[in-house]
This record gives sequence, C-alpha cells and structure tokens, in this order.
Amino acid sequence: MSKAIIAFTPEGKKGDVSVGETVLDGANRLGVDISAVCGGRGICGKCRVVVESGRELLGPVSSLEFISISDEELRRGYRLACCAALVGIGTVKINVPSQSRVGQQRLLVAGIQTKVPLNPAVRKYTVKLAKPTVASPLSDVEILLNALADQEKLRRVRVGYEALVRLPHSKGREDGVATVTMREGELIWVDPHDSSARNFGLAVDVGSTKLAAYLLDLNTGEVITSASSLNPQIAFGEDIISRITYASSSDNNLKRLQGVVIARINRLLHDMCGQAHVDPNEVVDAVIVGNTVMHHICLGITPEFLGRSPYAPVVRSAVNLQSRNIGLRMCPGAYVHSLPIIAGFVGADAVADVISTQINDLDVPAVLIDIGTNTEIVISDGRKLIACSCASGPAFEGGHIEHGMRAELGAIEEVYIDPYNLEPGYRTVGGAAPRGICGSGIVDAVASMLKCGIIRTDGVIVSDLSSPRIRRRNGVAEYILVHKEDTTMARDIVVTQDDIREIQLAKAAIFTGTSILMSRLGLRAADIEQIFLAGAFGTYVDPLSALTIGLYPEVSVDRIRFVGNAAGSGARMALLSVDVRLKAEEIAEHIEYVELATDKDFQHEFAQAMYFPHKEPSRFPMTAEKLKKRVSRRGPA
Amino acid sequence: MSKAIIAFTPEGKKGDVSVGETVLDGANRLGVDISAVCGGRGICGKCRVVVESGRELLGPVSSLEFISISDEELRRGYRLACCAALVGIGTVKINVPSQSRVGQQRLLVAGIQTKVPLNPAVRKYTVKLAKPTVASPLSDVEILLNALADQEKLRRVRVGYEALVRLPHSKGREDGVATVTMREGELIWVDPHDSSARNFGLAVDVGSTKLAAYLLDLNTGEVITSASSLNPQIAFGEDIISRITYASSSDNNLKRLQGVVIARINRLLHDMCGQAHVDPNEVVDAVIVGNTVMHHICLGITPEFLGRSPYAPVVRSAVNLQSRNIGLRMCPGAYVHSLPIIAGFVGADAVADVISTQINDLDVPAVLIDIGTNTEIVISDGRKLIACSCASGPAFEGGHIEHGMRAELGAIEEVYIDPYNLEPGYRTVGGAAPRGICGSGIVDAVASMLKCGIIRTDGVIVSDLSSPRIRRRNGVAEYILVHKEDTTMARDIVVTQDDIREIQLAKAAIFTGTSILMSRLGLRAADIEQIFLAGAFGTYVDPLSALTIGLYPEVSVDRIRFVGNAAGSGARMALLSVDVRLKAEEIAEHIEYVELATDKDFQHEFAQAMYFPHKEPSRFPMTAEKLKKRVSRRGPA
Repeated sequence: MSKAIIAFTPEGKKGDVSVGETVLDGANRLGVDISAVCGGRGICGKCRVVVESGRELLGPVSSLEFISISDEELRRGYRLACCAALVGIGTVKINVPSQSRVGQQRLLVAGIQTKVPLNPAVRKYTVKLAKPTVASPLSDVEILLNALADQEKLRRVRVGYEALVRLPHSKGREDGVATVTMREGELIWVDPHDSSARNFGLAVDVGSTKLAAYLLDLNTGEVITSASSLNPQIAFGEDIISRITYASSSDNNLKRLQGVVIARINRLLHDMCGQAHVDPNEVVDAVIVGNTVMHHICLGITPEFLGRSPYAPVVRSAVNLQSRNIGLRMCPGAYVHSLPIIAGFVGADAVADVISTQINDLDVPAVLIDIGTNTEIVISDGRKLIACSCASGPAFEGGHIEHGMRAELGAIEEVYIDPYNLEPGYRTVGGAAPRGICGSGIVDAVASMLKCGIIRTDGVIVSDLSSPRIRRRNGVAEYILVHKEDTTMARDIVVTQDDIREIQLAKAAIFTGTSILMSRLGLRAADIEQIFLAGAFGTYVDPLSALTIGLYPEVSVDRIRFVGNAAGSGARMALLSVDVRLKAEEIAEHIEYVELATDKDFQHEFAQAMYFPHKEPSRFPMTAEKLKKRVSRRGPA
Repeated sequence: MSKAIIAFTPEGKKGDVSVGETVLDGANRLGVDISAVCGGRGICGKCRVVVESGRELLGPVSSLEFISISDEELRRGYRLACCAALVGIGTVKINVPSQSRVGQQRLLVAGIQTKVPLNPAVRKYTVKLAKPTVASPLSDVEILLNALADQEKLRRVRVGYEALVRLPHSKGREDGVATVTMREGELIWVDPHDSSARNFGLAVDVGSTKLAAYLLDLNTGEVITSASSLNPQIAFGEDIISRITYASSSDNNLKRLQGVVIARINRLLHDMCGQAHVDPNEVVDAVIVGNTVMHHICLGITPEFLGRSPYAPVVRSAVNLQSRNIGLRMCPGAYVHSLPIIAGFVGADAVADVISTQINDLDVPAVLIDIGTNTEIVISDGRKLIACSCASGPAFEGGHIEHGMRAELGAIEEVYIDPYNLEPGYRTVGGAAPRGICGSGIVDAVASMLKCGIIRTDGVIVSDLSSPRIRRRNGVAEYILVHKEDTTMARDIVVTQDDIREIQLAKAAIFTGTSILMSRLGLRAADIEQIFLAGAFGTYVDPLSALTIGLYPEVSVDRIRFVGNAAGSGARMALLSVDVRLKAEEIAEHIEYVELATDKDFQHEFAQAMYFPHKEPSRFPMTAEKLKKRVSRRGPA
C-alpha cells in the first residue's frame, strides 16, 4: 500500500499515512491532539487545521468543509482534519492551531508566561556574625548590621519589627551564620543558618469567582506549583454588586468577606507549600491582583463607594503592606504588593493582563478581553491604551444557566448539532457522564443552534421545528441536549430560551464594550492585528463558536491568542521583578478609562449586539457568510 | 506684744510673729509646709531651714540643733525651725529646702519637667478635599495627597495601612474637610472633620515594680493627667532575674509577660482618657521607656540573653514600631517610640533620666541615681558620662521587709526615735492608722536607730539596751515601732535584724556602684556639685537619713536635687520633641557602660559599704561627726 508522509507542527511529529486516510487518522496515530467532538463526521467543525505545504496531496474540499470554513480561510489553507484525505504520495505539513486542541492542552499552551529578567523585591544575604563579648557587649542588631555593611556593603538598613523580635533566635549557634531577608532597605526576616537557597514568593489572582495562586522560586523565577479554588465570597453574593452591598452594610461584613478570601488564599498557599516541601515562613514576598472590588476587600478597604457614582476607588496606586496586616500566613515580616488599579471597575487584574500580554508594547492595534463575571477590555491603537469594564455576568462560567456548571468532571464542554437531523453530540470534562453544561459548552450549543436554524438571529428558539429535541416546558421553549437516561441526574439536560437570553446579555455587554472602545480610537475590526482572550472561559471556548454568537469583533481566528490566566501571569511577573512593578505603575497612570454607562452610543450598541452575531450582518461578514451557507445547504440535504 | 516679720522663700509668704515664737510656729500660721514629725520637740531633725537674713533676730543654737546640724551647716545658716525662736524685732528671711517639705509636696516640686521647645513627631493638618467626579474619578488617596501638596506643601507622602483603610470614612460629608495625622512623611490617620485641636500623646515609664503613664497635649506640651499602677508582672517574679527566667522558658511566657504589662498600660490610658474626655483613638503618638528587660519584654523581644554573659541586648538603638504590633489601644495608625538603651542592665529609663536632668549638659561633676529594684547610676565629670546598674532589690520599695509595704494609706513614711528614752514617733501616709512601713520610713527608722545607738555601725541591734522597745523574737532582735494596739493589725510593727540586713545590702549595692564609677572618673565626694535622686523612693526619702545610712556619697544636702520620676519626665520630653529623641540617641551612643561585676574593687568596696554609713568614717566626715556628737551627748542626758 502506498504511503505518504504527514508532519505536524508545532509538535514536529512525523509519520506515514496511507492514501485514503484523513489528516485526523494520522494525527490520532501519531498522538497529535486535535479536537473532533463529532467523531470525525465533519459536523462539529472543530478539527480545523492549516495545510502549510502539500495541499495538492489532499482530496478536494468537501461540502461539509465549505460550511465550517470561510472562502478566505480556504484560500489560506484551512481544512477539516476529518475530511481532508490523502490522495497522493509525498509530504504534507499540517499546522494544528491552538484553538483546535482539546481544552486541557490549550491551557498548557496558554499558561506560558512572558519571561522577565529576575529582579525580585526581596533578596537574601548570608553573613557571618561576630560574637558579643563582655568587653564589647554589642546588641544583636549592631552585630548584624555591621556584618551586612562589611560583607555585603549594605548600609542604612532598617530592621522590621518581626525581624527584630526574631533576631535573638539567630544567635547562640556555633557556626555564627545567619541569613537575612532584605526588601527595599528593610531587613524583614532573619534565619539562624544559610537559607539563601530557599527564597519563595506567592502570586495570587483574586477573581470574583475564582482564585488562582502560584508558588514561585525567587532565585530561579520558576513556577514551582499552582493551585486554584472558587472564591468563597460567592456565598455572600455571586456578582460584584452584591459583594459591594454586603461589604458596605457593616464593618463586620467587610471583615467577613476579607476573612474568607484570605483564609482561602492561606489554604492554597498551605497546600502548595505542602506539595513543594516549602515552609510557609519561607515565602517572603507576595503579589496580589484582582479587580477593584476584590482588591479593596482583600486589603480590608470598604468597596462602598465603588458602588456609587462616580465609582471612585479609595486608592489607585500600587499598595505595599505587611502581609500580617491582612492576615496572610507567610513569612511574618513579608510584604504584599498589590498592583495598581485603573478605575472603579478596571482593577489590578487588568494591569496584570497588560503586563503579561505586553499589549502596551505592540505597535499595532490590539484588543485584550479578560472574560469573567466582570469583563475587562483594554484596547491599543498601537500608541495609547484605553480600558473599560463590563458586567458580563456569570453565564460564561455556567452561572444563571438552567443546567450551567463550572468546567468540572462531567461538564459538557463541547457541543455540536447535526444540521440535518438536529441531533447533538458533546464531549464532557474527563469523559464522565454529563452533569451539566459549562461556559464553553453553552457557547458551542448556542452557536450550533444558530447554525442549524434552531434559534433565530434574535435568539428566539424556533419551537415549531419538527424535532423531538425541541419542546416547550411551562410555556418556555428549550432544546434537549442530553436525555436523562444518559445523565447522572433525573432530568434532561436542556438549553432553555432563558439560557439563550443570558448568553445574549453577556455577549452583548462584552461586544458593546469592545465596540465602544474601538470607535473611541477610530478602529474597525479589520484593523485589529491581535485579540488576546484571557480568563479560564476565554481559554476553553471555541473561538469560532464565540465568533458565531458575536462575542468579539470578527477577525480571522488566527489573530486570536489565548493567554489563559493573564492576570495571574502578570502577578507572577511582578513577583519576579521590581521593574515590572514600576512598569505597571506607569501603565496604570497612562491608561485611559472609559465609563461605558455614560457613553451616548451605549444603549444603541447594546441593543444591536443582542443579536447573533449582530443586528448588522456587515459587522460580521465572514460569519454571516457561513451562516448563510449553512442555511442554504440544509434545505436540499 | 512686740512683733517681728517672718518671710518664707520660695513661697513669698510673709507675716508677723511674736517674740518667743519659733520659725515653725510662723510657718504653721502662714500655711508654709515644713515637716516636723516629732511635733516640734527638736528630736526628729526634719524641720531644717536656712536663715537667709536676720540670723541675729533668732535665739542661740540649742543643744538639740547641734545634734542634727553639722558645724559647716550651722555656719551656712541651717537651723531647726522648731528650735529657732524669735528674740528681736525686724525681718527674718527663711528658706525652706525641698527636703524639709512633707513628701507629697516634694513630689509636686520634683514633678516639674525640663521645658523643651515643642517639636512633636506627629502633627495634624486640616485640608479641604475636592470631590471626585464621573469625568475625573480620582481615588481618595489622590484627592487627599493633592490637597496636602497644594494646601500644606507636603509632598512624597506615604499612606500608612491603617489610614488607607480608614480613608473612605473621611469622604461623603458635605463640608469636605479632613484632618490628616502625619508622622515623618507617613500619613498615619485621617479624621473626617477638623480635629487639629485634638492631638494627644502617651508617655510611659515601665519600671520593674511600677508603671507611670502620662497623657499629654501635643499641641501645647501640657501634661493633661497621669496615672500609675504596680507592674502586674510582679505576679511572675519580683525581680528582673526571675522575669528573665520566666520569659525565657517559652514563647508563651514571654507573650504573657508582655500581655499583662501592655494590658495594664491600656487600662491606664483608658482611665486617663476617660478623665480627660479624650478618645484613645485621638492619642497619636507614644514614647515608652524602661530598663532593658522591661524594654525587651514590652516590645515582645525575648530577654533571655540579658540573663547570660555577656548580657548583650538584642537592640540598643531607638525603636519605632507600630503601636498595634505590641497591642497598644490608641490611634490604630500610631507608632510607639522607645528610647535607646545603653547596655544589658542600663536601659531607656537611664537615658530618659539623663535627658530630663540634663546631667550631660552640666560642665561640673554630677551624679544621677535612679533608685528602684534595679538602680541606675550615671556620673558625669563635666565632660563624659559613664553608667552602671546595680541590683538594689525591693527593700526601698518595702519589699523583703517584715512589715514593708508601698507608700500607700497607712504606711509609716517618716520615723524618729527619741535618743533619751528610745521611744519612736512617726507619720503615716494620709495620717491613717499604721499598717506597715514604706521605703522612706524604713530608712528613717534605721538612721534613727543608728543615731540612738540601737544599732551599731555594722548593723547589729544592741539587744541588751534596757528598753521595752527592743526584744528578741525567735532568737532574732527587733525594735518595736508601733504596738499592735495602735495598728490596724493584730501584730506589732517592728524593724527586725533581717530588715536591717536588707537595707544594708541595698544601700551597699548603690553606694558601691556610685563609688566605683566615681573612682573611674577620678572623682571624690567633695568634687560632686549635684546629686540627682530619681525614682519614687528617691523623692520621698529624707536625704539626711539616707546620708546617715550611707546610701550615696556625702555631699551637703543642698546639693541633692529630687527629680522624682525623671525617667517619666524624659519620656514626656521625647514625646514632645524629635530633637530630644535625636539627643537621646547621641547620649546613648556616647555614654560608657561599666560592668560592675567585673570590677576588681567591687568585692572590697561592697564589704566596706555594708557598714553604716561606711567602714571608713573618713568617707562620711560630716555624718560621722554628727553620730559622734549624738553618742557623746546621750550619755550625760
């Protein structure tokens, strides 16, 4: 049997394929990860690959591929891996874009952080101590400061209180060696031995919904381990506004909200330290980022005035405070650095996003969208940065969705619907029996329903389609994604009309914010060279599905870059370098904040953005073209 | 009847006296306070006054006066007020030295503090705040810092954590006025109104036995009120060494010792604030002084190594820490300043003594003795200062004395013994029925017993004297000061042989320390221009009785200056002026510490100093002369 050679980038995996086999067959055999939730039937459209060379060795573009791929993309070499079959002998070179990978894989790619030259705020110095004598009974402080001046040329050192109290424990040993931990001229800790090899830091991203924590080695810059958790404040209110309301009603409530989140950070740190065989006391520096409300609450500052016009924060500049002031259980002398914030609703997380994506250093127009319960948007025209925030709600994290859930075991994370019989297919997290739908799943579902004509562009479910999957319950239309027999529950998993409304509101908020910022800078979608999608949802969502529903301006999907938890990355970078902290201050100072609520176009833009993908098809020409193809092809099938 | 005129200085009181009346009669009528515990019988010798002019109008010196007053003093105009009677017409001018005043009165005199130009570390500024607008939603911090820069020319202000948390509460008011509390470039607190008139500070002297606290107005420098209390650490050990032992045995013990003393300071502050209608949150600065062990424990630093050679402290320089670090309940953003210490057993209290007596600025030889359970001694030869400390024990505070008690209601504070019949007289605190003997009483008693020959110069009670006041109980000799019928108790109040041994040990320790320091500087008693006696005991003791037992080098009593709680005075001065704090650092750095235990003369000096007043009468010529006169006159009477 005749063989061709198939090579996959960026893995660099290469192997034989027989004539008649598809690219997906080759990928599967070589262990190259390509998403193909419909099992290679050409329906889900997720296995898009780019043929870099050897296009002529593949069979002609199938009608199924015409539906999923635009003409422009076809010209650039896009194919569906399940449809493109080898027809000739030779070498075909296939690039698998990150958006065609299975979610888990994508995160790893996205997790890579921008490298920064190490210049941590905290450094350790090991010195040899003289012994006091009766003739010269110098104090411990004098002996230590003398040693630092003589051996390390460190002068004018201030001794922090926790270090002072600790000092006596560093003496009386035979070898007379001590390691001091210094932070900006302050001696914050002292160990009675050479501990210079053990210098650790904590970076935390406090989201309204989720906490992400990272333990770093400050000597090498390496991430040792990470951990994440839901934000336990959710019990006090899911969205930012309800947290503000709760925290503002009494000092105790504020303390409670602060207490639960700090306790959780302490637990994450404790767990990471346990894994890494690090004593929490060896963690000598921390950087914390979060949106403005999380920032204020974590620092113990009331967010009360963030909830009232003019939504002014208490402090915008970076804050350095002693970790014990907020109850963090790490080195008792350590400080916490909070990156600066930009405005009442654009916080330190957005600054961290900018830092890690380096959007400020690009000289081309670019968009950064950090999707969460609150979504931050930063846009650059290549010279200046402007930012806004929008209340996108928890729908993309599974909130306010009938069967919504987080991307945990059993969550439906990918969905496709066969346009011919309206039967669905799906993939769950961990391959477990389905329990609900997570954010990326609901977006897939809505996009598929749209592509199959189950919903109209105004979001209304066409309930008179003849399919057993579509029904009305209590007068509300819904689409049955999984029959209860196939779930672990006693109910069908459905997508309801109300779910679709939630998605419309959420995507309209994000699109409107992006759109208004772009028009402020005179940018059109075609001008955008890069869209950074940040946040867990942004990492897992199918970018084409997101585009289909009109979540962000229509650009070619290869201009979309998944940056994962960019806020966490920025926090890690600031942990590793004081230069980054200075840069962050500069960015926060110069970024222009746009208050969406007061924009004259807001109402109109929002109303138009409620449509899928938009009221004006000209704003989404490629997507509109594909939807039109779908509908026109479904008829004759 | 013919009248003379008598005038008293420094009161400036003046009035008529008849011929035949004594100076004491005149003083009593004019309300001039003169101590005369024997009721004017010429026995107690406490009513010594100096005749400034008109000596010729007074009758001849009586034989009783010859016993109490040395020849040199007679030449300088000393008389006993009860013996000196008017014999001529004219004006006689009498000076009543402070040592002849009743104790209470003396404290007032001694309490006067050296004035310092006000230059407090903490200042308040009232500014008018702009309001944030939607167009320019500046943070509270920015608005406040802008106002400070514009209105007060204060730039580069750091915002402390407690102030930051407090900031939001300062806005939202109609008048937009806020008062910020600044300390060395740091904004430590903010009030949402004009609070500039209310600026208070706390000065605390933490003694091993007693706490003294002062509430000051930092705008005027006035002491508003003061309070004192026993040091509750006494429950954990009376002396410094037992406190060190207790605190060193575990971290919890250290925390307990720190906790009880801080809690007591909080209570004193709370009480003072209550009296003065001040909110503890309005107390924005504090200065704390104490001996090195108290210093370490108050700051939460283990005193473990102060108990072991080479007795090195953990820190000698001044310490500034946040009041909440040690649990002080005052303005949450406030700092506490601890004056520097000199050595393991010469603490910040000694530095405060130097500050308030200004012994460092005198250009003549002077001695400073701050008597307590631990006694600090500082000596100047007019150029350099040297210091030591000695474990004088609690005898002078009533400790380890059979009927010893503190100078509370019913404590015998003055004693005399009639040299002819050995019957005693006494005065109690508050004039109440006697309950015990306080420090000044026991010194008076021992001096009187010595003068009457009841004890020998080696301290042994001459138990075969025929007096019902002298008896043996369980084989130990004792002198009955008060019969039980005259007390509130079921027992006689006595002075035992063991009590006298305690006094010998205590006075020998102090005298030896003083003597060794003097010999280091090549000074003899005659060179000393001034002896500052500090501490409560030093304030109340009869200086002549103290001299009689040989507590300090023999100088003319008019060279003795009672400075009361000089450590507390120094703390108050440091509270009022950062210049004083700088001066204190300089003093602490240049003062030379002498370790008595390693002095080659120590044993010998101590053994000699165990005698009353000293083994070598030539060291106390005036006192020896008087004792000799006493003994020679008692015989024939």
